[in-house]
Amino acid sequence: MIIPVKWSDEGVLMLDQRLLPTEEKWLVLKTYNDVADGIRDMVVRGAPAIGVSAAYGMALGARQFVGMDVADLEDELDFVGDALATTRPTAVNLFWAIDRMKRTFQTAKSEGKSVSEIKGILLEDAKAIHDEDIEAQRLIADFGGALIDDNATVLTHCNAGALATGGVWGTALGVIRGAVNQGKTIAVIADETRPYLQGARLTAWELDQDNIPVTLITDNMSGHMMKKGKVQAVVVGSDRIAANGDVANKIGTYMVAVLAKRHGIPFYVAAPLSTVDMNCPTGDDIPIEERDIREVTHVKDIQLAPEGISVSNYAFDVTPNDLVTAIITEKGVARAPYTESLRKQFED
Amino acid sequence: MIIPVKWSDEGVLMLDQRLLPTEEKWLVLKTYNDVADGIRDMVVRGAPAIGVSAAYGMALGARQFVGMDVADLEDELDFVGDALATTRPTAVNLFWAIDRMKRTFQTAKSEGKSVSEIKGILLEDAKAIHDEDIEAQRLIADFGGALIDDNATVLTHCNAGALATGGVWGTALGVIRGAVNQGKTIAVIADETRPYLQGARLTAWELDQDNIPVTLITDNMSGHMMKKGKVQAVVVGSDRIAANGDVANKIGTYMVAVLAKRHGIPFYVAAPLSTVDMNCPTGDDIPIEERDIREVTHVKDIQLAPEGISVSNYAFDVTPNDLVTAIITEKGVARAPYTESLRKQFED
Repeated sequence: MIIPVKWSDEGVLMLDQRLLPTEEKWLVLKTYNDVADGIRDMVVRGAPAIGVSAAYGMALGARQFVGMDVADLEDELDFVGDALATTRPTAVNLFWAIDRMKRTFQTAKSEGKSVSEIKGILLEDAKAIHDEDIEAQRLIADFGGALIDDNATVLTHCNAGALATGGVWGTALGVIRGAVNQGKTIAVIADETRPYLQGARLTAWELDQDNIPVTLITDNMSGHMMKKGKVQAVVVGSDRIAANGDVANKIGTYMVAVLAKRHGIPFYVAAPLSTVDMNCPTGDDIPIEERDIREVTHVKDIQLAPEGISVSNYAFDVTPNDLVTAIITEKGVARAPYTESLRKQFED
Repeated sequence: MIIPVKWSDEGVLMLDQRLLPTEEKWLVLKTYNDVADGIRDMVVRGAPAIGVSAAYGMALGARQFVGMDVADLEDELDFVGDALATTRPTAVNLFWAIDRMKRTFQTAKSEGKSVSEIKGILLEDAKAIHDEDIEAQRLIADFGGALIDDNATVLTHCNAGALATGGVWGTALGVIRGAVNQGKTIAVIADETRPYLQGARLTAWELDQDNIPVTLITDNMSGHMMKKGKVQAVVVGSDRIAANGDVANKIGTYMVAVLAKRHGIPFYVAAPLSTVDMNCPTGDDIPIEERDIREVTHVKDIQLAPEGISVSNYAFDVTPNDLVTAIITEKGVARAPYTESLRKQFED
């Protein structure tokens, strides 16, 4: 059972995903700054996992606070929230978790709780966010698993597994695990997902651990596999879903979605509602992170491209809603028109 | 001026493309077996360059022959041809060059030439194949360059440059160089082209040498770049073109073509007629090479994926002719229906 982020009395424990699959090493992050660095440096990644980590980061920030004044703690939490919020721009779960922790603080403050009590309340809420995330994934696995046919080969891009979430199921890999739990025989094709190789390093590792058959391909091979009839469904996660169902996810997802459409293969997105940003009307409003070009030009110390070359390194792209067969959340299976179906899920 | 394969009295000189862009090292291949190994191990790659190399390999095989009997030389050349033909299955220029050298032998034999004379004739024909390849590229550059608008950004996949041919121009990069020579301002986006990274290692290096502005991206970024309006044309090479215009080229080309179609971006294929296989009615008849999975699981000695993982490593895919805007050869610009336009180019 993979849980990549955990609370301990010493601080937040994170499985260092940069070292997988060749090394399994846990880091102990003792301050909110450590947590912010861990998110920025991709010790942990994946929208739900970033949300859980940020919640723990807020709890840690509160615990580090040494004063007795609730108003001072409020200022400090604003500061902690800002530090965490500037780590990565695309995954909305980050901002969602920080906001929720701030609202929890406001409620406790309005109830006249002391600094010491509020520290405990914030930690409990971070743990609740974590528990709710795992429960959401369990439901996504159930709802999504039912959409996958027996004996299907499912293609996934990047890692939307237990490692990308609070743990256990994962979102896209939750759907696959759900189908397997429902007694179906499922095989997976994992895109390696350059430049950071989350598919090769993380998805392949996770599925291998669960004995779910997985075949690794390069990103530019998925079209060929679809053309040869080797893919029956595509399932991916998301970093942010706009109110109209446009889906920001790891760079390359858009290409997979276009190819799936051409080949009549269903393209499913699995994500908790905390990934749906009702404040973003369309995908055009989602900020797309650009990362260090060294991710593209080097693998560890090996130089892959000429010195000084110009590089673009967009970390995400947006798949328009017309390419999305369904969005699977903990509330069920949303279908087009998403503006209605997603709003309805929030109201339920 | 890049010429990756050269004849010398010592044997065939090949720029070791496995070491680029960090090291420029030339190998001296003294036997036809060395040439076969050089093709198989990708010291040299790219359909036209493989054809030129195979021609020199045949000439080298003849030179190695120590007998005086023309019939024995014929047997030996069959043997040499077979050794060269089993190196790589997809690039048809390989088989084309071997066949042409055998026909040249037959003509010389029928004219009563001696073994010594035939050795000279075969070397002259290998050099002629090389010269014709460079001349074909010059014409492709002229015809293709005219199709590219001033101030266009052109996306290319893999390396179809001077390094992939007999030298100087290249096929896809020939079109780009042709446009530049016609006074146009052209920028290039190069897909890195996993797993072998011909885009990152070779295309970026070549264009950098020519001071043509190039931006490197991962393969899964091309869709995003097109969606953002950053690509005005796609130009690729080919390893084999079927009689109906279906195009086998580096894995991932098919995805680029599908995305180009979606975005209304012209998708051009540049190749000499020696790449067109009139014996292949459609792309379904083109054999697709599968290569060592270590190309995917490792970069040099760095392990990217879990030990023992299942991997598919198809080296090529087939782009159906309906996605191809035009095929540019030394005879001009062929357009659909290709069955007619390509046949006409052979008849001209």
